[in-house]
Amino acid sequence: MRKLSNDELFRKTPSEFKEAIKTPLVLVLDNVRSLNNVGAVFRTADSFLLEAVYLCGITGTPPHKDIQKTALGATDTVHWKYFNSTLEAVAELKSLQFKVYAIEQAEQSQMLNTFQIESHQKVAFILGNEINGVDQDVIDVCDGVIEIPQTGYKHSLNISIAAGIVSWEVYRQLL
Amino acid sequence: MRKLSNDELFRKTPSEFKEAIKTPLVLVLDNVRSLNNVGAVFRTADSFLLEAVYLCGITGTPPHKDIQKTALGATDTVHWKYFNSTLEAVAELKSLQFKVYAIEQAEQSQMLNTFQIESHQKVAFILGNEINGVDQDVIDVCDGVIEIPQTGYKHSLNISIAAGIVSWEVYRQLL
Repeated sequence: MRKLSNDELFRKTPSEFKEAIKTPLVLVLDNVRSLNNVGAVFRTADSFLLEAVYLCGITGTPPHKDIQKTALGATDTVHWKYFNSTLEAVAELKSLQFKVYAIEQAEQSQMLNTFQIESHQKVAFILGNEINGVDQDVIDVCDGVIEIPQTGYKHSLNISIAAGIVSWEVYRQLL
Repeated sequence: MRKLSNDELFRKTPSEFKEAIKTPLVLVLDNVRSLNNVGAVFRTADSFLLEAVYLCGITGTPPHKDIQKTALGATDTVHWKYFNSTLEAVAELKSLQFKVYAIEQAEQSQMLNTFQIESHQKVAFILGNEINGVDQDVIDVCDGVIEIPQTGYKHSLNISIAAGIVSWEVYRQLL
């Protein structure tokens, strides 16, 4: 099982990336503090050819060296947009016919392992601040809450890892 | 959809964690350089109640403040073990009847979306160095290579995010 070299990976060029049909998923970062997390989310969005990343409130935006350190060039390919408030981002996504879900632990949340993406349905997932999670005001205007089931001591995943898991789940279901 | 407070999450205590039946998955870190990545892997291993994390070669070990910063206490719950070389870790896992897979992009790799865990089969996933990936010598002694399919520009996920995705996939299939 010979490891493949970079030349063998059929990687898209940035212009091929921009023209490609995307995975119909937008990741929305609700006041994410860590620029390393922002960069890591860009890198994941590049890997799974996501529609866009929306950066809201205190979430940092490219270009920034601490985003670049973990994004490793993915800010050149992935479409992104900044909003002063996450509520504005949700309003725009709803006007564009996205179904908007918070990734949280809440009453009546749907467990990720039971979530089934409908074909032709565009979705957006909101990932919250490292300490406070997704704001309750934002949850209140979402179409639903999706929860990553967990059974350990902390019940808390890093936000960039949670973003990776939920993005994989959509990408996997559409493969 | 009211957000749950920490008191409502049915979190295990560290001693309940240690006694619980685990997800039969060991994550093996093959010369991972970043202590932030090591800590993040511990946090994920806690969330999904994994069997253990094996730290090999140059991979840092707890206690260390840069591991603690991203592990957030998960080093107190998750079982871990250090090996001078990843080959020794693989040998031990095989002697314990684990099936051992490298997470890599290789000839004849199996795509993660087609990977099906067999019931009662213990598995180990090896995640490689940030630059060089899993060493070819290690791949050569594995039972297989599992690849996370990617379609973007970089074809490269952060190792802690790759670890999160493959751990979720095993956890999800066993739920």
